[in-house]
Amino acid sequence: MKKIILDVDPGHDDAVAIMLAAFNPEIDLLGITVVAGNQTLEKTFNNALKVCSHLGIDVPVYKGMPGPMVREQVIADDIHGETGLDGPDFGEITKKGETMHAVDYIIEKLLGSDEKITLVPTGPLSNIGMALRKEPRIKEKIEQIVLMGGAYQLGNSTPAAEFNIFADPEAAYVVFSSGLPVVMMGLDLTRQALATKEVVDKIGSLNNKASKLFVDLMEFFAKTQHDVFGWSAPPVHDPTTVAYLIDPSCIETKPMYCKIELKSEDSYGRTLCDYFGILKKEPNVDVAVKLDFDKFWNIVYETLKLYK
Amino acid sequence: MKKIILDVDPGHDDAVAIMLAAFNPEIDLLGITVVAGNQTLEKTFNNALKVCSHLGIDVPVYKGMPGPMVREQVIADDIHGETGLDGPDFGEITKKGETMHAVDYIIEKLLGSDEKITLVPTGPLSNIGMALRKEPRIKEKIEQIVLMGGAYQLGNSTPAAEFNIFADPEAAYVVFSSGLPVVMMGLDLTRQALATKEVVDKIGSLNNKASKLFVDLMEFFAKTQHDVFGWSAPPVHDPTTVAYLIDPSCIETKPMYCKIELKSEDSYGRTLCDYFGILKKEPNVDVAVKLDFDKFWNIVYETLKLYK
Amino acid sequence: MKKIILDVDPGHDDAVAIMLAAFNPEIDLLGITVVAGNQTLEKTFNNALKVCSHLGIDVPVYKGMPGPMVREQVIADDIHGETGLDGPDFGEITKKGETMHAVDYIIEKLLGSDEKITLVPTGPLSNIGMALRKEPRIKEKIEQIVLMGGAYQLGNSTPAAEFNIFADPEAAYVVFSSGLPVVMMGLDLTRQALATKEVVDKIGSLNNKASKLFVDLMEFFAKTQHDVFGWSAPPVHDPTTVAYLIDPSCIETKPMYCKIELKSEDSYGRTLCDYFGILKKEPNVDVAVKLDFDKFWNIVYETLKLYK
Amino acid sequence: MKKIILDVDPGHDDAVAIMLAAFNPEIDLLGITVVAGNQTLEKTFNNALKVCSHLGIDVPVYKGMPGPMVREQVIADDIHGETGLDGPDFGEITKKGETMHAVDYIIEKLLGSDEKITLVPTGPLSNIGMALRKEPRIKEKIEQIVLMGGAYQLGNSTPAAEFNIFADPEAAYVVFSSGLPVVMMGLDLTRQALATKEVVDKIGSLNNKASKLFVDLMEFFAKTQHDVFGWSAPPVHDPTTVAYLIDPSCIETKPMYCKIELKSEDSYGRTLCDYFGILKKEPNVDVAVKLDFDKFWNIVYETLKLYK
Repeated sequence: MKKIILDVDPGHDDAVAIMLAAFNPEIDLLGITVVAGNQTLEKTFNNALKVCSHLGIDVPVYKGMPGPMVREQVIADDIHGETGLDGPDFGEITKKGETMHAVDYIIEKLLGSDEKITLVPTGPLSNIGMALRKEPRIKEKIEQIVLMGGAYQLGNSTPAAEFNIFADPEAAYVVFSSGLPVVMMGLDLTRQALATKEVVDKIGSLNNKASKLFVDLMEFFAKTQHDVFGWSAPPVHDPTTVAYLIDPSCIETKPMYCKIELKSEDSYGRTLCDYFGILKKEPNVDVAVKLDFDKFWNIVYETLKLYK
Repeated sequence: MKKIILDVDPGHDDAVAIMLAAFNPEIDLLGITVVAGNQTLEKTFNNALKVCSHLGIDVPVYKGMPGPMVREQVIADDIHGETGLDGPDFGEITKKGETMHAVDYIIEKLLGSDEKITLVPTGPLSNIGMALRKEPRIKEKIEQIVLMGGAYQLGNSTPAAEFNIFADPEAAYVVFSSGLPVVMMGLDLTRQALATKEVVDKIGSLNNKASKLFVDLMEFFAKTQHDVFGWSAPPVHDPTTVAYLIDPSCIETKPMYCKIELKSEDSYGRTLCDYFGILKKEPNVDVAVKLDFDKFWNIVYETLKLYK
Repeated sequence: MKKIILDVDPGHDDAVAIMLAAFNPEIDLLGITVVAGNQTLEKTFNNALKVCSHLGIDVPVYKGMPGPMVREQVIADDIHGETGLDGPDFGEITKKGETMHAVDYIIEKLLGSDEKITLVPTGPLSNIGMALRKEPRIKEKIEQIVLMGGAYQLGNSTPAAEFNIFADPEAAYVVFSSGLPVVMMGLDLTRQALATKEVVDKIGSLNNKASKLFVDLMEFFAKTQHDVFGWSAPPVHDPTTVAYLIDPSCIETKPMYCKIELKSEDSYGRTLCDYFGILKKEPNVDVAVKLDFDKFWNIVYETLKLYK
Repeated sequence: MKKIILDVDPGHDDAVAIMLAAFNPEIDLLGITVVAGNQTLEKTFNNALKVCSHLGIDVPVYKGMPGPMVREQVIADDIHGETGLDGPDFGEITKKGETMHAVDYIIEKLLGSDEKITLVPTGPLSNIGMALRKEPRIKEKIEQIVLMGGAYQLGNSTPAAEFNIFADPEAAYVVFSSGLPVVMMGLDLTRQALATKEVVDKIGSLNNKASKLFVDLMEFFAKTQHDVFGWSAPPVHDPTTVAYLIDPSCIETKPMYCKIELKSEDSYGRTLCDYFGILKKEPNVDVAVKLDFDKFWNIVYETLKLYK
């Protein structure tokens, strides 16, 4: 069982990542930390509580960084709507968040742990970057960082950059240059994780509260992903991180040297990945290149099936 | 018949572009201008004369820029060898080059022409950039610029940049921001133009001097492209430009806003192409996205067949 | 009486700033926070305790950021020596530091205060930058930030940048773009604050423990400033901040628009100050331009005289 | 007698540089090349002809680059007015310009010369940069490049950059990295060359056509320099180059490593001069630091006195 802290900015696909992490027996979800990203912090924090309340997920939830480490804030309301989780009806929020700051929770939990813990960020890396800089000794307790973000080909926030990295490139720089094992689920991978009609129908057929939420989330997400990027089915980015921890064989990775671009206006936030090994530098990131589509969606299906 | 000036830095694939432009009846090859690129200017100029001598191509050849407009020079001897055209045995060079500087030839030919002329650069854009800046009035006489260079996905000189653009990003900036119609055959396209064994064998079966040269060029090129990038068959970049002019239907393009990255060390020379139209800017480049493989190689085959 | 938190990286001139803040009746020194800068955090923290122990300064001292927010660490051991405070003999350290992290102290102290507090950073701005980003609501409780750092003319770490800003440009960016009132004591000012022989002799004549420490500090500082930069007498940067708070009339400032350069390798960390108002942007920093030399050193003299 | 080519963009202070170069017996003025800068090329070219016509200066004048090598054009009409030489009444233009392009004239004159020639650019470096890149062998015939441009302290086009460098930073990069001896008369120097009332009155007392032109030029120039920058008397930048060639003792220089900033938006065009030798790099530019005010203006006075 893998001990993880899930760091999210829900966000439709974050919500699916939460479900995977909460329900799959391979994962020991220690805590959920929340960061501003797809929407402002108040909204993403609220959304995390909504998802946990709705599905009875009993894990502590911590509010973290209200914005990026250095740059001015950007959000993705074009994709995730006014609330950051538009679409489903969640009912009343019964879950209460913790009072400790997420950055401090990450530091305390890691320093106090006997075993190493895996960090799973699916939003901007502000919480992780701040924790690494505030208390560098946590590095010794981090098993690996499996993150959703970046692209070695085409970005989605700009031609060069993917949203999570673009939203806090300096934090990403801290993570990518940390010397820690990093696994990057970039757009190159997640654009293969399309929630097609068949996928949604099959999961919908489970007909439990989790599967219903999945279907409702995808309905809204499909519409915005189509309107903004022209996708026929929405790429479900964030759950690939948790799926990879459940069964690494569902995703093929390639070790690459990867650096975050901070120096350019136009390329700001690009994950410069040396796919061909041109620079002859030591690889520092395992970059996801290929998804086993059936295996991935089967993990989601089987995990949501476990919801009671 | 399309009037063109072919601007080359031979280079194995440049040699194939010269053959297409010289032998295909759709193309009126007014002159060949040479630029430093794959090798130093003395070598690329010599190589252009070699190809013309060997195949009896009777077109004036002009020596141009010995290096880039601003940056320090880089060459591609890992791919094209010590001479820039290693492999074939060309015999004696009988052809003499012209004495006028290529930059001045481009300016004079354009200003003196009644009809518009298409520029076809398959090397660094130093000659074209210099001509545009030295005499901006040539813009009125340029039909379009169909160039080989760039990539909207993965570079080959760095993770960010393709060689021709990386070798003179400032010249590329001048061209891409000129307001002229630009068609870009980037690596995204040319990596589809692989000279597979079947292709080489078929062209080899023509059994004339041009086809033999093609086969010899590909033999060397296949080896270095494999050793450096791991390609199973070499991408034959440059002739896609001429093939497109012979029959545009062999290449699908997509209009994109495209800007040359000059401000970053790591992303220097990237062609930032807004594939998804995220920036909502007016497209300024027709970027090649898809090759009709059979149609393309058939153009090469049919053109080399015409050699007598 | 002005309530301040003094944020230091001692450092010879930081030590003088501590003395001014501790002994002058105009200043209510609430706490001292320490940051890595002139030396590593362990050493600068130790140095702050040394100074307080030696002079019996009874103020809580907090350990903060062990390095910059984003960039890799640089220190100034060429100027401040192996310990960061080479030269004087301090004797045993009796003072104990606090356990709370300086970033959290700054946040708690500010949020819990009825009155606004002035922040006085004389090292890299890592503690202040982190606090502002971790808890943006502290802005409402900050009276102003009077910092030592930057230069509108010549840098000292690079031709473009001054050490404190160069050591954490991203933190400086956070501070300078915060919208808070910022007063910048840059090198343009502090290079006027030379501890000439006359100055040192006069203060030395006070013949108390504080003045003796001052003399010892200046002896070492004079040597390294001479060897590295060729100064005939050392510029005593940091105490200008506290002197300005004691008597603003000792320093003339000019409001300027000022931006921290993050995008360039060569100009990284420059404080781009629009001295002439060329950019027609709203000034965001009061930049020190002229020191009243006699008044400034008299403040130091009179304050050290108060030591008992 | 020093052979020079004067490369100008008149411009009020350029006009004074032309007078010095044309009338002083120490200088053999081979030709005047004109570049866009203070105004568009048509206007600066016209202005050079105006000055030569008005004063009977019999030197060939060549029209060069209509704009910068790479960047988009900027001009300085706020300082030099609508014509680029507002103020004086020049009467009819009788002088005819040459037909050869200035870039080609520079190349031909240098390659054809037995002796080395000094280039004296007082505008953007577009002509010199283009010539150096089009024909690098001219380097062997260049004695030195004595230019007006740059600043190691405060810029005038932006906080970072001086106008001549800002107007074509890429050309400046070519010149500064050429390996040739470069003497830089930057704003740090030329801001000491103020045409005070005393200076203007004394030169006016010569009461010849040249001195009258000087007085008329300064009248307009004083007004715009005051309105834009607040100067009480105008800094007369360009003639410092020629004065230095007439008598080097009038200007003190310091060898520095100096690099042109191309990578930043905000610092674009800065001359990064390592005044303190911090970077430990080999100096490549003699940077002017101190003007002998009386000696300088005396050179101007004595030279204008020679006008007949």
